[in-house]
Amino acid sequence: MTKPTTRIGTPLPDNSRFLMRGKDVLGDIMGKMTFTETFFFIVCGREPTPDEVRIFDAALIILIDHGITPHALVSRLVENAVPTDIQVSVAAGLLLVGNRFAGTMAGCGQILSDCMAQDGDKREFLEAKVAELRADNKFVPGFGHPYYKPEDPRATRLFEIARENSVKGEFIELVHVLGEEVDKAMGKHLTMNVTGGLAAVLSEISFPVEVMRSCSVIGRAAGLVAHVYEEKTNPIVGDVMDFAYGVEYLEP
Amino acid sequence: MTKPTTRIGTPLPDNSRFLMRGKDVLGDIMGKMTFTETFFFIVCGREPTPDEVRIFDAALIILIDHGITPHALVSRLVENAVPTDIQVSVAAGLLLVGNRFAGTMAGCGQILSDCMAQDGDKREFLEAKVAELRADNKFVPGFGHPYYKPEDPRATRLFEIARENSVKGEFIELVHVLGEEVDKAMGKHLTMNVTGGLAAVLSEISFPVEVMRSCSVIGRAAGLVAHVYEEKTNPIVGDVMDFAYGVEYLEP
Amino acid sequence: MTKPTTRIGTPLPDNSRFLMRGKDVLGDIMGKMTFTETFFFIVCGREPTPDEVRIFDAALIILIDHGITPHALVSRLVENAVPTDIQVSVAAGLLLVGNRFAGTMAGCGQILSDCMAQDGDKREFLEAKVAELRADNKFVPGFGHPYYKPEDPRATRLFEIARENSVKGEFIELVHVLGEEVDKAMGKHLTMNVTGGLAAVLSEISFPVEVMRSCSVIGRAAGLVAHVYEEKTNPIVGDVMDFAYGVEYLEP
Amino acid sequence: MTKPTTRIGTPLPDNSRFLMRGKDVLGDIMGKMTFTETFFFIVCGREPTPDEVRIFDAALIILIDHGITPHALVSRLVENAVPTDIQVSVAAGLLLVGNRFAGTMAGCGQILSDCMAQDGDKREFLEAKVAELRADNKFVPGFGHPYYKPEDPRATRLFEIARENSVKGEFIELVHVLGEEVDKAMGKHLTMNVTGGLAAVLSEISFPVEVMRSCSVIGRAAGLVAHVYEEKTNPIVGDVMDFAYGVEYLEP
Repeated sequence: MTKPTTRIGTPLPDNSRFLMRGKDVLGDIMGKMTFTETFFFIVCGREPTPDEVRIFDAALIILIDHGITPHALVSRLVENAVPTDIQVSVAAGLLLVGNRFAGTMAGCGQILSDCMAQDGDKREFLEAKVAELRADNKFVPGFGHPYYKPEDPRATRLFEIARENSVKGEFIELVHVLGEEVDKAMGKHLTMNVTGGLAAVLSEISFPVEVMRSCSVIGRAAGLVAHVYEEKTNPIVGDVMDFAYGVEYLEP
Repeated sequence: MTKPTTRIGTPLPDNSRFLMRGKDVLGDIMGKMTFTETFFFIVCGREPTPDEVRIFDAALIILIDHGITPHALVSRLVENAVPTDIQVSVAAGLLLVGNRFAGTMAGCGQILSDCMAQDGDKREFLEAKVAELRADNKFVPGFGHPYYKPEDPRATRLFEIARENSVKGEFIELVHVLGEEVDKAMGKHLTMNVTGGLAAVLSEISFPVEVMRSCSVIGRAAGLVAHVYEEKTNPIVGDVMDFAYGVEYLEP
Repeated sequence: MTKPTTRIGTPLPDNSRFLMRGKDVLGDIMGKMTFTETFFFIVCGREPTPDEVRIFDAALIILIDHGITPHALVSRLVENAVPTDIQVSVAAGLLLVGNRFAGTMAGCGQILSDCMAQDGDKREFLEAKVAELRADNKFVPGFGHPYYKPEDPRATRLFEIARENSVKGEFIELVHVLGEEVDKAMGKHLTMNVTGGLAAVLSEISFPVEVMRSCSVIGRAAGLVAHVYEEKTNPIVGDVMDFAYGVEYLEP
Repeated sequence: MTKPTTRIGTPLPDNSRFLMRGKDVLGDIMGKMTFTETFFFIVCGREPTPDEVRIFDAALIILIDHGITPHALVSRLVENAVPTDIQVSVAAGLLLVGNRFAGTMAGCGQILSDCMAQDGDKREFLEAKVAELRADNKFVPGFGHPYYKPEDPRATRLFEIARENSVKGEFIELVHVLGEEVDKAMGKHLTMNVTGGLAAVLSEISFPVEVMRSCSVIGRAAGLVAHVYEEKTNPIVGDVMDFAYGVEYLEP
């Protein structure tokens, strides 16, 4: 058995140095790199270019908040129960970043990545993929939105920022081909939503598909902190619980 | 009963605008502000100055990683069990950011904040606070470290970056007075650790005490993403479990 | 360093036997013991008496459900987001079992246990403890309730079941002395609530103070399963979110 | 919009009565029903028969513990970080009860349920289902085990207890047909594991497929309490972390 290893950082008991992927944290990272650069660096193992940083910042920001979402409501309810432990409130809210809300960029990114990795015709690959998902009664991840129609302005803005920052554009093109195949298969137009946009844009900067959903996780975590803080001084949980207590109990 | 309100962002079904604390997210924030600026803005309700941003970036970075911590190990174990749900792995790891590991800046920040808010002599206030904690057999939050002695280089570096970026310095001064009172009460020197440093530095930029611990939460979340990603290709959980299975079962 | 050990059960790779605290799980426990007996046995390391089992069953049942609590609402919101992962919904709801809701029996049990362990007069000890908590602006755990007055019928019923099942009664007596001291200190009557009752009753059957709160955790977990299941067919989350979306956004 | 309703229990502010699915909790449930009966009752809305109770007890017990599992290790690591909050330790450990460990009975139960609900030949349905899963490179849930071969004694014991308690036996028969089809498709024998056994046995007593995984959740939660308690007095986390700190850091 080979000894287990890590390339992320020095193990704890190392006093003389404090390294992250070969860089001295105190001297080379703190005071020199932003959080966004460091997050990209620790995950990907390479420093992002200034263009990539601007795109990554936009990707992290776009899902920070969307009002009183189910995530925010959960974090606020937990804050009300354990007000001294913000890590518990934030963790609880993050558990909702799944396949339904704000977590679908991973599925879409995987399709784009698989398409790029194969040798055949790209459109045919995507057409077949859409057919396969529909046969399994599954949604195509990254498409559809309850009220952003015909476009999700967040996806549009992400593409704009990506193009302003010199992306090659092949994944953005690909996700649009995917959208065309979705529309063709459905016989009507489906909105490419923000997670479809994120899948393409994060692929452009080589943020790995396997952890793509983490952009929602980190972004949304920041927004949940704001909700927890607001709940402490301008609470909504009391009203929500008044509403919940009004749910009528029916006898069997 | 007054209608519940929020000042954070527009509620979901609002199609025509997408606002965060009065700013248009797509036009005024995305592509213009960094994640760090936006996180500060959504929590505090005001834009940080460029000096404050550099300090806040350093504060978010300092706790991103410290090798294979208990937090990282938990996230890796959960990743191994539910590999498609990175939000669950990250949330589980964040549950360890409590009073023991990486979460004590809130307690220290509260002492500093209470000290500033009172009218009496600051040193006397801190001396009394230290005495009170010791009488209750409690640690003074922000002090003590198993192997960083006599100084925690992370705290030192935080103060350096704060000073390079024009802080007023009153909270940094105060936490040092607190450290002197700790040493006096203990009859020996205790290291002011990174959370003591963070408490002072985050107070300098007015990041609210009530949610101060969220800097560890967001920072560490980023590092946990790297550990989850590494676990997928260069795992350590197998070795950890081999070790755990070696724990001997004793009959009653 | 001594080799780490456990007395709970055989480590995983042991094929020939499957033991829990010295008993064969398949032959001596399954089909012979109830879940309640097994839970007590695995935690305490001894089999409960039939009297103790009846009391422990009542203690586990009393906190299973209380309508649409904040816990239930959180589990339902998470169910709506990740419907295939009931463990995530239940875990999220359990995070609310803290010092505020349904988790205070541990604090009350600790006071009772400390009182029993000391040599002095019991009433004087409790009087001093109440004074100490009030000086720190803290509630006495186990006392006070928003609408069960002057008695919490759940506590009353717990004592009744305990007495019907031959407890010695010294902790039940003690918690009533504590209640008298609370009333004296407050100058008015405070309800001894269900967690005060649980603290006494669980102490009577020697369920350890250190993990006393786990009775709420296991009990409530069962109730949350019912809420998750009901949410799948008769949902309330849609209505709750309609209410939440009605929270008004105020400009800065 | 119809008013939201629940059939589980009375809403919180109801002082005069405390009902669960039509029964008075204090008078009809506490002191009369066991935890296992009450859990079945609150989820299914009907009281189980004595035979069903014995089977349900066995189903809850079988997954309580399996030594130092990844779940137990996570709960112990979290206990070490937040020792006063057992609900957090237990919740973290439960997050691992997913598709990989201890959570697969839901998938297997769904196959059995779908098979029963259709009109065609049962064996042909199962043969086709196995083929479909294999075509998608997926495991058949409930089959395969690293070291229980050729049988998982836990599944065998579950069937025995079910038969001793008068089940009709149609789901147990069906899961064995499924096993035959698995073996045929694989060209070798795969162990029907404990989750396959649970899927059949829980179906026999009509515990709903949609929340079947909750039996692992509740059962394992009880075992995790024992691990958290043992960690407080006979810890293993120190040794585990010593091992983890020995993970070698490699430069890029």
